[in-house]
Amino acid sequence: MRLALEYAGARYVDVLRTPAGDFRSERKWPPFAPPYLVAGKRVIAQTANILLYLGPRLRLAPRSEAGRLWAHQLQLTIADWLTEVHDTHHPIGSGLYYEQQKPEARRRAADFLAHRLPKFLSYFEGVLTASGGPYLLGRRLTYPDLSLFQMVAGLRYAFPRSMARIERRYPQLVALAARVEFHSKLARYLRSGRRIPFNLQGIFRAYPGLDRRRNKPKKT
Amino acid sequence: MRLALEYAGARYVDVLRTPAGDFRSERKWPPFAPPYLVAGKRVIAQTANILLYLGPRLRLAPRSEAGRLWAHQLQLTIADWLTEVHDTHHPIGSGLYYEQQKPEARRRAADFLAHRLPKFLSYFEGVLTASGGPYLLGRRLTYPDLSLFQMVAGLRYAFPRSMARIERRYPQLVALAARVEFHSKLARYLRSGRRIPFNLQGIFRAYPGLDRRRNKPKKT
Repeated sequence: MRLALEYAGARYVDVLRTPAGDFRSERKWPPFAPPYLVAGKRVIAQTANILLYLGPRLRLAPRSEAGRLWAHQLQLTIADWLTEVHDTHHPIGSGLYYEQQKPEARRRAADFLAHRLPKFLSYFEGVLTASGGPYLLGRRLTYPDLSLFQMVAGLRYAFPRSMARIERRYPQLVALAARVEFHSKLARYLRSGRRIPFNLQGIFRAYPGLDRRRNKPKKT
Repeated sequence: MRLALEYAGARYVDVLRTPAGDFRSERKWPPFAPPYLVAGKRVIAQTANILLYLGPRLRLAPRSEAGRLWAHQLQLTIADWLTEVHDTHHPIGSGLYYEQQKPEARRRAADFLAHRLPKFLSYFEGVLTASGGPYLLGRRLTYPDLSLFQMVAGLRYAFPRSMARIERRYPQLVALAARVEFHSKLARYLRSGRRIPFNLQGIFRAYPGLDRRRNKPKKT
């Protein structure tokens, strides 16, 4: 969401980062959970839904209905992926601390890294191949490209050893992430104080116990 | 998806249930995973996205953009809920058998039943209160009502003891589920062979070890 707003140069207030962040939702259409977007009188929740709303307004979605549904489908697949990333450190309960579910987290993270991560990476590499690139939908950047960049950046933070080892197998995905990271419309934001650094309270968490182990030096 | 198509009396082929079910997706816009809808030349995946497409066409979504986004937001919240239900029996890896993750499943299911289930039920009870009922968006049935019915039915199958104990706290939700179940446009389908019964291969699974324990008879 923030990337989409920043890319488009939209004016917005990040209530999470302002003292006036005590936002009360309207009663009629209450969100289940954050994040949400307040646009005039409207309150829109669910990240993918917010991007569905913002996409055309920020010129980050295709014009045709078919193209918009395809962009949204990619976004929903990224959302599923993100849930799986979250569950690597919280496989038992989101209301519990990581320390209360460490053995389960290790098992789930190992399964994620061995099976799910390559499956998602390879899927998006395939989409980039099919689109002709450099973006998911072809020549124009759309909002799922921004989400995919955020995913790659988060994965590199959370699982540095695993990513260093496997990302070279997905050259188009790596190229897309670099293209977004150094895009003239985002470079300043990404290097500013407004960009929230990845941290141990977020969805992506750098718990070394969950990444693949460091290669042990060979015995001689 | 099936409920929406049946409710609207749409003609469709359920490839999962036909011998000709060997569907190959087009190359350009490949889905990550089933289910998907083939509509003419188009292939649309992600259940919520399919319902976003079908909703207006089957007259199961409001006309205004704001109303459509709200219906979609509810659907996405139900999708998140469904993922959590799935993870009660597969908290470690969807590629593993339940038998390979039973202790973790017990812990996750207990957390789900204690914390997440009441939170979701109470949220949707609140939405029904705010809408004025009897449906989530008010007087007219829309596709998230069908999904919510399916959720309640699945939860009753998977967690019969827990649901029997707590669902009375959510009278409007119970009334909505009954209203959909006995709706004249669905009653025949729901009692037909086309309706796939809940089973131990689906998202909702009746593993007795995951439901709350039977109350032990009191010692006298």
